[in-house]
Amino acid sequence: MRIDVVTLFPEFFTSPLSTSLLGKAIARNIASVHLTNPRDFTTDKHHRVDDEPYGGGVGMLMKPEPLFAAVESLPVLARREVILLTPQGDRLHQNLLKELATYDQLVLICGSYEGVDERVCQHLATREISLGDFVLTCGEIPAIALINGVVRLLPGTVGKTESLKLESFESGLLDYPQYTRPQNFRGWEVPEVLLSGNHAHIAAWREQQQRQRTSDRRPDLLDRDEL
Amino acid sequence: MRIDVVTLFPEFFTSPLSTSLLGKAIARNIASVHLTNPRDFTTDKHHRVDDEPYGGGVGMLMKPEPLFAAVESLPVLARREVILLTPQGDRLHQNLLKELATYDQLVLICGSYEGVDERVCQHLATREISLGDFVLTCGEIPAIALINGVVRLLPGTVGKTESLKLESFESGLLDYPQYTRPQNFRGWEVPEVLLSGNHAHIAAWREQQQRQRTSDRRPDLLDRDEL
Repeated sequence: MRIDVVTLFPEFFTSPLSTSLLGKAIARNIASVHLTNPRDFTTDKHHRVDDEPYGGGVGMLMKPEPLFAAVESLPVLARREVILLTPQGDRLHQNLLKELATYDQLVLICGSYEGVDERVCQHLATREISLGDFVLTCGEIPAIALINGVVRLLPGTVGKTESLKLESFESGLLDYPQYTRPQNFRGWEVPEVLLSGNHAHIAAWREQQQRQRTSDRRPDLLDRDEL
Repeated sequence: MRIDVVTLFPEFFTSPLSTSLLGKAIARNIASVHLTNPRDFTTDKHHRVDDEPYGGGVGMLMKPEPLFAAVESLPVLARREVILLTPQGDRLHQNLLKELATYDQLVLICGSYEGVDERVCQHLATREISLGDFVLTCGEIPAIALINGVVRLLPGTVGKTESLKLESFESGLLDYPQYTRPQNFRGWEVPEVLLSGNHAHIAAWREQQQRQRTSDRRPDLLDRDEL
Protein backbone atom coordinates (compact mmCIF):
# COMPACT_ATOMS: atom_id res chain seq x y z
CA MET A 1 0.00 0.00 0.00
CA ARG A 2 1.10 3.53 -0.76
CA ILE A 3 0.26 6.20 1.81
CA ASP A 4 0.72 9.88 1.03
CA VAL A 5 0.55 12.39 3.85
CA VAL A 6 -0.05 16.03 2.95
CA THR A 7 1.25 17.92 5.96
CA LEU A 8 2.69 21.28 6.98
CA PHE A 9 4.74 19.39 9.59
CA PRO A 10 6.49 16.48 7.85
CA GLU A 11 9.06 16.43 10.68
CA PHE A 12 6.28 15.28 13.03
CA PHE A 13 6.37 11.84 11.42
CA THR A 14 10.08 11.07 11.69
CA SER A 15 10.10 9.06 14.90
CA PRO A 16 6.56 7.57 14.82
CA LEU A 17 7.22 6.10 11.37
CA SER A 18 10.49 4.49 12.41
CA THR A 19 9.41 3.00 15.75
CA SER A 20 8.10 -0.44 16.65
CA LEU A 21 5.80 -2.52 14.40
CA LEU A 22 5.04 0.37 12.06
CA GLY A 23 8.74 1.06 11.51
CA LYS A 24 9.32 -2.62 10.76
CA ALA A 25 6.39 -2.82 8.33
CA ILE A 26 7.73 0.17 6.41
CA ALA A 27 11.26 -1.24 6.42
CA ARG A 28 9.85 -4.46 4.93
CA ASN A 29 7.94 -2.52 2.23
CA ILE A 30 4.54 -3.70 3.44
CA ALA A 31 3.58 -0.06 3.16
CA SER A 32 5.38 3.03 1.90
CA VAL A 33 4.71 6.44 3.41
CA HIS A 34 5.43 9.63 1.44
CA LEU A 35 5.31 13.10 2.95
CA THR A 36 4.30 16.14 0.90
CA ASN A 37 4.30 19.69 2.24
CA PRO A 38 1.66 22.02 0.76
CA ARG A 39 3.99 24.93 1.54
CA ASP A 40 6.18 23.68 -1.32
CA PHE A 41 3.23 24.31 -3.66
CA THR A 42 2.62 27.96 -2.82
CA THR A 43 3.26 30.46 -5.58
CA ASP A 44 3.58 33.72 -3.61
CA LYS A 45 6.91 34.86 -2.24
CA HIS A 46 5.82 34.49 1.42
CA HIS A 47 4.74 30.86 0.90
CA ARG A 48 1.41 31.50 2.57
CA VAL A 49 -0.70 28.44 3.30
CA ASP A 50 -3.33 30.13 5.49
CA ASP A 51 -5.64 33.13 5.37
CA GLU A 52 -8.53 34.73 7.28
CA PRO A 53 -12.05 33.28 7.15
CA TYR A 54 -14.73 35.00 5.04
CA GLY A 55 -17.55 36.27 7.22
CA GLY A 56 -15.23 36.83 10.16
CA GLY A 57 -14.26 34.55 12.98
CA VAL A 58 -11.24 33.46 14.95
CA GLY A 59 -8.04 31.92 13.69
CA MET A 60 -6.77 31.15 10.22
CA LEU A 61 -7.84 28.60 7.61
CA MET A 62 -5.73 26.55 5.24
CA LYS A 63 -6.06 27.95 1.72
CA PRO A 64 -7.35 25.68 -1.05
CA GLU A 65 -4.68 26.19 -3.75
CA PRO A 66 -1.62 24.69 -2.00
CA LEU A 67 -3.63 21.65 -0.88
CA PHE A 68 -5.08 21.01 -4.33
CA ALA A 69 -1.66 21.46 -5.93
CA ALA A 70 0.01 19.15 -3.41
CA VAL A 71 -2.54 16.34 -3.91
CA GLU A 72 -2.51 16.80 -7.69
CA SER A 73 1.27 16.37 -7.72
CA LEU A 74 0.97 12.80 -6.42
CA PRO A 75 0.83 9.62 -8.48
CA VAL A 76 -2.62 8.04 -8.68
CA LEU A 77 -2.99 4.32 -8.01
CA ALA A 78 -6.08 2.33 -8.98
CA ARG A 79 -8.04 2.11 -5.73
CA ARG A 80 -7.43 5.37 -3.92
CA GLU A 81 -9.08 7.52 -1.27
CA VAL A 82 -8.23 11.13 -0.45
CA ILE A 83 -8.97 11.53 3.25
CA LEU A 84 -9.25 14.78 5.16
CA LEU A 85 -8.66 14.34 8.89
CA THR A 86 -11.20 16.60 10.62
CA PRO A 87 -13.48 16.53 13.68
CA GLN A 88 -16.35 16.96 11.18
CA GLY A 89 -15.73 13.54 9.62
CA ASP A 90 -16.93 9.98 10.20
CA ARG A 91 -15.55 8.67 13.45
CA LEU A 92 -12.67 6.25 13.04
CA HIS A 93 -13.76 2.69 13.85
CA GLN A 94 -12.25 -0.77 13.40
CA ASN A 95 -14.60 -1.56 10.49
CA LEU A 96 -13.49 1.62 8.73
CA LEU A 97 -9.82 0.66 9.20
CA LYS A 98 -10.58 -2.76 7.69
CA GLU A 99 -12.17 -1.13 4.66
CA LEU A 100 -9.29 1.31 4.20
CA ALA A 101 -6.80 -1.59 4.39
CA THR A 102 -8.20 -2.84 1.04
CA TYR A 103 -7.10 0.28 -0.87
CA ASP A 104 -3.96 0.65 -3.02
CA GLN A 105 -3.34 4.23 -1.97
CA LEU A 106 -4.49 6.49 0.84
CA VAL A 107 -3.84 10.22 0.61
CA LEU A 108 -4.17 11.82 4.06
CA ILE A 109 -4.64 15.58 4.31
CA CYS A 110 -3.72 16.93 7.74
CA GLY A 111 -5.58 20.07 8.74
CA SER A 112 -3.94 22.71 10.90
CA TYR A 113 -4.93 26.07 12.36
CA GLU A 114 -8.73 26.52 12.62
CA GLY A 115 -9.45 24.17 9.72
CA VAL A 116 -9.38 24.03 5.93
CA ASP A 117 -11.33 25.81 3.23
CA GLU A 118 -14.62 24.03 2.59
CA ARG A 119 -13.79 23.53 -1.11
CA VAL A 120 -11.06 21.10 -0.03
CA CYS A 121 -13.68 19.05 1.83
CA GLN A 122 -16.13 19.14 -1.07
CA HIS A 123 -13.97 18.85 -4.17
CA LEU A 124 -10.61 17.34 -3.17
CA ALA A 125 -11.28 14.90 -0.32
CA THR A 126 -13.29 11.78 -1.13
CA ARG A 127 -13.83 11.14 2.56
CA GLU A 128 -13.61 12.97 5.90
CA ILE A 129 -12.55 11.05 9.00
CA SER A 130 -12.45 12.12 12.66
CA LEU A 131 -10.35 10.52 15.38
CA GLY A 132 -13.05 11.28 17.96
CA ASP A 133 -15.06 14.00 19.68
CA PHE A 134 -12.16 16.10 20.87
CA VAL A 135 -9.93 18.88 19.56
CA LEU A 136 -6.21 18.52 18.77
CA THR A 137 -3.88 21.20 17.44
CA CYS A 138 -3.35 19.41 14.13
CA GLY A 139 -4.34 16.52 11.88
CA GLU A 140 -0.93 14.84 12.13
CA ILE A 141 -1.93 12.78 15.19
CA PRO A 142 -5.14 11.42 13.62
CA ALA A 143 -3.05 10.66 10.50
CA ILE A 144 -0.48 8.59 12.39
CA ALA A 145 -3.30 6.76 14.23
CA LEU A 146 -4.96 5.91 10.94
CA ILE A 147 -1.66 4.82 9.35
CA ASN A 148 -0.85 2.59 12.34
CA GLY A 149 -4.32 1.03 12.45
CA VAL A 150 -4.40 0.35 8.70
CA VAL A 151 -0.82 -0.92 8.31
CA ARG A 152 -1.39 -3.23 11.29
CA LEU A 153 -4.05 -5.00 9.20
CA LEU A 154 -1.89 -5.51 6.11
CA PRO A 155 -0.61 -9.07 5.63
CA GLY A 156 2.81 -9.54 7.22
CA THR A 157 2.76 -6.70 9.74
CA VAL A 158 1.67 -8.72 12.76
CA GLY A 159 1.69 -12.47 13.31
CA LYS A 160 -1.33 -14.53 12.37
CA THR A 161 -2.06 -15.21 16.03
CA GLU A 162 -2.53 -11.59 16.91
CA SER A 163 -4.82 -11.03 13.92
CA LEU A 164 -7.10 -13.72 15.27
CA LYS A 165 -7.45 -11.73 18.43
CA LEU A 166 -8.96 -8.92 16.43
CA GLU A 167 -12.01 -11.05 15.75
CA SER A 168 -12.94 -10.81 19.41
CA PHE A 169 -12.82 -7.00 19.25
CA GLU A 170 -15.07 -7.17 16.21
CA SER A 171 -17.67 -9.04 18.23
CA GLY A 172 -18.41 -5.61 19.67
CA LEU A 173 -17.37 -6.57 23.20
CA LEU A 174 -14.50 -5.28 25.31
CA ASP A 175 -11.65 -7.67 25.98
CA TYR A 176 -11.54 -9.94 29.06
CA PRO A 177 -9.03 -9.38 31.91
CA GLN A 178 -5.62 -10.91 31.18
CA TYR A 179 -2.93 -12.08 33.58
CA THR A 180 0.67 -13.16 33.24
CA ARG A 181 3.42 -14.14 35.69
CA PRO A 182 3.86 -13.88 38.61
CA GLN A 183 0.84 -15.85 39.84
CA ASN A 184 0.93 -13.90 43.10
CA PHE A 185 1.99 -10.28 42.81
CA ARG A 186 1.98 -8.35 46.08
CA GLY A 187 -0.80 -10.59 47.34
CA TRP A 188 -2.99 -10.14 44.26
CA GLU A 189 -3.64 -13.60 42.80
CA VAL A 190 -4.42 -14.70 39.27
CA PRO A 191 -8.04 -16.00 39.18
CA GLU A 192 -8.06 -19.76 39.86
CA VAL A 193 -10.00 -20.68 36.75
CA LEU A 194 -7.08 -19.50 34.58
CA LEU A 195 -4.79 -21.99 36.33
CA SER A 196 -7.26 -24.87 36.02
CA GLY A 197 -6.22 -26.10 32.59
CA ASN A 198 -9.92 -26.59 31.83
CA HIS A 199 -10.30 -24.86 28.47
CA ALA A 200 -14.10 -24.92 28.47
CA HIS A 201 -14.24 -23.26 31.89
CA ILE A 202 -11.65 -20.68 30.86
CA ALA A 203 -13.56 -19.83 27.67
CA ALA A 204 -16.85 -19.52 29.58
CA TRP A 205 -15.24 -17.31 32.25
CA ARG A 206 -13.67 -15.07 29.64
CA GLU A 207 -16.92 -14.63 27.74
CA GLN A 208 -18.78 -13.84 30.96
CA GLN A 209 -16.10 -11.29 31.85
CA GLN A 210 -16.35 -9.70 28.40
CA ARG A 211 -20.12 -9.30 28.72
CA GLN A 212 -19.93 -8.03 32.29
CA ARG A 213 -17.19 -5.52 31.53
CA THR A 214 -18.91 -4.27 28.38
CA SER A 215 -22.18 -3.92 30.27
CA ASP A 216 -20.42 -2.00 33.08
CA ARG A 217 -18.26 0.26 30.94
CA ARG A 218 -19.74 0.50 27.46
CA PRO A 219 -23.43 -0.44 27.48
CA ASP A 220 -23.72 1.41 24.15
CA LEU A 221 -21.77 -1.43 22.49
CA LEU A 222 -24.29 -3.99 23.77
CA ASP A 223 -27.21 -1.95 22.44
CA ARG A 224 -25.54 -1.93 19.05
CA ASP A 225 -25.01 -5.69 19.34
CA GLU A 226 -28.72 -6.29 19.75
CA LEU A 227 -29.72 -4.47 16.57
CA MET B 1 1.73 20.52 34.37
CA ARG B 2 4.02 17.53 34.63
CA ILE B 3 3.35 14.62 32.28
CA ASP B 4 5.12 11.29 32.75
CA VAL B 5 4.93 8.73 29.97
CA VAL B 6 5.76 5.13 30.83
CA THR B 7 6.68 3.60 27.49
CA LEU B 8 8.74 0.80 25.96
CA PHE B 9 9.30 3.11 22.97
CA PRO B 10 10.49 6.49 24.29
CA GLU B 11 12.04 7.18 20.86
CA PHE B 12 8.49 7.33 19.42
CA PHE B 13 7.96 10.69 21.11
CA THR B 14 11.03 12.57 19.86
CA SER B 15 9.54 14.34 16.85
CA PRO B 16 5.88 14.67 17.98
CA LEU B 17 6.99 16.42 21.18
CA SER B 18 9.19 18.90 19.34
CA THR B 19 6.81 19.86 16.50
CA SER B 20 4.31 22.69 16.15
CA LEU B 21 2.23 24.05 19.05
CA LEU B 22 3.07 21.16 21.37
CA GLY B 23 6.80 21.68 20.84
CA LYS B 24 6.42 25.39 21.57
CA ALA B 25 4.35 24.77 24.72
CA ILE B 26 7.03 22.42 26.05
CA ALA B 27 9.80 24.85 25.12
CA ARG B 28 7.93 27.55 27.09
CA ASN B 29 7.56 25.24 30.12
CA ILE B 30 3.77 25.27 29.97
CA ALA B 31 4.07 21.52 30.33
CA SER B 32 7.01 19.21 30.92
CA VAL B 33 7.02 15.68 29.50
CA HIS B 34 9.21 12.96 31.04
CA LEU B 35 9.74 9.55 29.46
CA THR B 36 10.32 6.45 31.60
CA ASN B 37 11.04 3.01 30.13
CA PRO B 38 9.74 0.05 32.18
CA ARG B 39 12.54 -2.04 30.66
CA ASP B 40 14.95 -0.06 32.85
CA PHE B 41 13.10 -1.45 35.88
CA THR B 42 13.42 -5.16 35.09
CA THR B 43 15.56 -7.22 37.45
CA ASP B 44 16.29 -10.30 35.29
CA LYS B 45 19.29 -10.43 33.01
CA HIS B 46 17.17 -10.58 29.84
CA HIS B 47 15.23 -7.42 30.82
CA ARG B 48 11.92 -9.12 30.09
CA VAL B 49 8.87 -6.88 30.11
CA ASP B 50 6.37 -9.39 28.67
CA ASP B 51 5.22 -12.95 29.30
CA GLU B 52 2.54 -15.44 28.19
CA PRO B 53 -1.09 -15.13 29.36
CA TYR B 54 -2.40 -17.49 32.06
CA GLY B 55 -5.18 -19.69 30.71
CA GLY B 56 -3.73 -19.64 27.19
CA GLY B 57 -4.33 -17.26 24.34
CA VAL B 58 -2.45 -15.41 21.67
CA GLY B 59 0.35 -12.88 22.05
CA MET B 60 2.23 -11.63 25.06
CA LEU B 61 1.21 -9.42 27.96
CA MET B 62 3.15 -6.71 29.74
CA LYS B 63 4.25 -7.99 33.14
CA PRO B 64 3.17 -6.10 36.25
CA GLU B 65 6.53 -5.66 38.10
CA PRO B 66 8.35 -3.37 35.61
CA LEU B 67 5.28 -1.13 35.24
CA PHE B 68 4.72 -0.82 38.99
CA ALA B 69 8.43 -0.14 39.55
CA ALA B 70 8.53 2.47 36.76
CA VAL B 71 5.50 4.36 38.08
CA GLU B 72 6.70 4.12 41.68
CA SER B 73 10.04 5.67 40.68
CA LEU B 74 8.30 8.91 39.68
CA PRO B 75 7.80 12.00 41.85
CA VAL B 76 4.22 12.45 43.06
CA LEU B 77 2.56 15.85 42.69
CA ALA B 78 -0.60 16.86 44.54
CA ARG B 79 -3.35 16.31 41.99
CA ARG B 80 -2.30 13.32 39.95
CA GLU B 81 -3.90 10.64 37.77
CA VAL B 82 -2.25 7.43 36.58
CA ILE B 83 -3.83 6.66 33.23
CA LEU B 84 -3.62 3.40 31.33
CA LEU B 85 -4.25 3.84 27.60
CA THR B 86 -6.35 0.83 26.54
CA PRO B 87 -9.31 0.07 24.25
CA GLN B 88 -11.10 -1.10 27.42
CA GLY B 89 -11.13 2.40 28.91
CA ASP B 90 -13.46 5.39 28.83
CA ARG B 91 -13.54 6.93 25.40
CA LEU B 92 -11.52 10.13 25.08
CA HIS B 93 -13.82 13.14 24.78
CA GLN B 94 -13.39 16.90 24.95
CA ASN B 95 -14.95 17.07 28.43
CA LEU B 96 -12.48 14.45 29.65
CA LEU B 97 -9.58 16.49 28.23
CA LYS B 98 -10.89 19.55 30.04
CA GLU B 99 -11.01 17.65 33.31
CA LEU B 100 -7.49 16.24 32.85
CA ALA B 101 -6.17 19.75 32.11
CA THR B 102 -6.89 20.65 35.76
CA TYR B 103 -4.40 18.13 37.16
CA ASP B 104 -0.84 18.83 38.33
CA GLN B 105 0.53 15.56 36.99
CA LEU B 106 -0.61 12.94 34.51
CA VAL B 107 1.18 9.59 34.39
CA LEU B 108 0.40 7.84 31.11
CA ILE B 109 1.06 4.09 30.83
CA CYS B 110 1.36 2.94 27.21
CA GLY B 111 0.33 -0.67 26.64
CA SER B 112 2.04 -2.77 23.99
CA TYR B 113 1.76 -6.36 22.73
CA GLU B 114 -1.64 -7.91 23.50
CA GLY B 115 -2.22 -5.79 26.58
CA VAL B 116 -1.13 -5.46 30.20
CA ASP B 117 -1.60 -7.63 33.26
CA GLU B 118 -4.97 -6.91 34.89
CA ARG B 119 -3.33 -6.02 38.21
CA VAL B 120 -1.89 -2.93 36.52
CA CYS B 121 -5.43 -1.85 35.57
CA GLN B 122 -6.83 -2.56 39.03
CA HIS B 123 -4.08 -1.50 41.41
CA LEU B 124 -1.75 0.91 39.58
CA ALA B 125 -3.90 2.91 37.15
CA THR B 126 -6.45 5.30 38.62
CA ARG B 127 -8.17 5.57 35.25
CA GLU B 128 -8.34 3.76 31.91
CA ILE B 129 -8.82 5.77 28.73
CA SER B 130 -9.42 4.62 25.14
CA LEU B 131 -8.76 6.65 22.00
CA GLY B 132 -11.71 5.00 20.25
CA ASP B 133 -13.20 1.72 19.05
CA PHE B 134 -10.24 0.56 17.01
CA VAL B 135 -7.00 -1.35 17.51
CA LEU B 136 -3.51 0.17 17.26
CA THR B 137 -0.20 -1.61 17.76
CA CYS B 138 0.67 0.41 20.86
CA GLY B 139 -0.49 2.95 23.43
CA GLU B 140 2.03 5.57 22.33
CA ILE B 141 -0.35 7.09 19.76
CA PRO B 142 -3.26 7.48 22.21
CA ALA B 143 -0.73 8.98 24.66
CA ILE B 144 0.46 11.66 22.22
CA ALA B 145 -3.16 12.44 21.32
CA LEU B 146 -4.03 12.90 24.99
CA ILE B 147 -0.92 15.01 25.63
CA ASN B 148 -1.68 17.24 22.64
CA GLY B 149 -5.35 17.64 23.57
CA VAL B 150 -4.58 18.45 27.23
CA VAL B 151 -1.62 20.78 26.66
CA ARG B 152 -3.66 22.66 24.06
CA LEU B 153 -6.05 23.61 26.88
CA LEU B 154 -3.38 24.89 29.27
CA PRO B 155 -3.16 28.70 29.54
CA GLY B 156 -0.64 30.13 27.08
CA THR B 157 -0.52 27.29 24.54
CA VAL B 158 -2.97 28.76 22.05
CA GLY B 159 -4.26 32.29 21.69
CA LYS B 160 -7.40 33.36 23.53
CA THR B 161 -9.28 33.65 20.26
CA GLU B 162 -8.84 30.01 19.35
CA SER B 163 -9.92 28.92 22.83
CA LEU B 164 -13.19 30.73 22.31
CA LYS B 165 -13.82 28.60 19.27
CA LEU B 166 -13.75 25.56 21.48
CA GLU B 167 -16.97 26.67 23.11
CA SER B 168 -18.79 26.01 19.87
CA PHE B 169 -17.45 22.45 19.79
CA GLU B 170 -18.68 22.01 23.33
CA SER B 171 -22.18 22.91 22.21
CA GLY B 172 -22.21 19.36 20.87
CA LEU B 173 -22.55 20.44 17.23
CA LEU B 174 -20.13 19.98 14.35
CA ASP B 175 -18.46 23.09 13.00
CA TYR B 176 -19.89 25.16 10.13
CA PRO B 177 -18.24 25.27 6.67
CA GLN B 178 -15.41 27.80 6.49
CA TYR B 179 -13.99 29.64 3.49
CA THR B 180 -10.94 31.76 2.86
CA ARG B 181 -9.41 33.43 -0.21
CA PRO B 182 -9.76 33.19 -3.16
CA GLN B 183 -13.43 34.08 -3.42
CA ASN B 184 -13.67 32.11 -6.65
CA PHE B 185 -11.52 28.99 -6.81
CA ARG B 186 -11.85 26.99 -10.03
CA GLY B 187 -15.42 28.24 -10.37
CA TRP B 188 -16.40 27.28 -6.82
CA GLU B 189 -17.65 30.43 -5.11
CA VAL B 190 -17.71 31.40 -1.43
CA PRO B 191 -21.40 31.54 -0.29
CA GLU B 192 -22.73 35.07 -0.75
CA VAL B 193 -23.93 35.49 2.81
CA LEU B 194 -20.30 35.34 4.02
CA LEU B 195 -19.46 38.34 1.81
CA SER B 196 -22.52 40.35 2.92
CA GLY B 197 -20.97 41.99 5.98
CA ASN B 198 -24.28 41.35 7.77
CA HIS B 199 -23.16 39.75 11.00
CA ALA B 200 -26.64 38.64 12.08
CA HIS B 201 -27.21 36.88 8.76
CA ILE B 202 -23.79 35.26 8.92
CA ALA B 203 -24.37 34.02 12.47
CA ALA B 204 -27.80 32.63 11.54
CA TRP B 205 -26.41 30.90 8.43
CA ARG B 206 -23.57 29.36 10.40
CA GLU B 207 -25.86 28.04 13.10
CA GLN B 208 -28.21 26.57 10.53
CA GLN B 209 -25.23 24.92 8.78
CA GLN B 210 -24.02 23.49 12.08
CA ARG B 211 -27.41 21.95 12.83
CA GLN B 212 -27.85 20.64 9.29
CA ARG B 213 -24.40 19.11 9.15
CA THR B 214 -24.69 17.54 12.59
CA SER B 215 -28.09 16.14 11.68
CA ASP B 216 -26.69 14.70 8.41
CA ARG B 217 -23.43 13.30 9.75
CA ARG B 218 -23.73 12.79 13.49
CA PRO B 219 -27.38 12.56 14.56
CA ASP B 220 -26.15 10.85 17.75
CA LEU B 221 -24.79 14.23 18.92
CA LEU B 222 -28.22 15.85 18.53
CA ASP B 223 -29.88 13.09 20.53
CA ARG B 224 -27.40 13.72 23.31
CA ASP B 225 -28.10 17.44 23.06
CA GLU B 226 -31.77 16.89 23.78
CA LEU B 227 -31.20 15.03 27.04
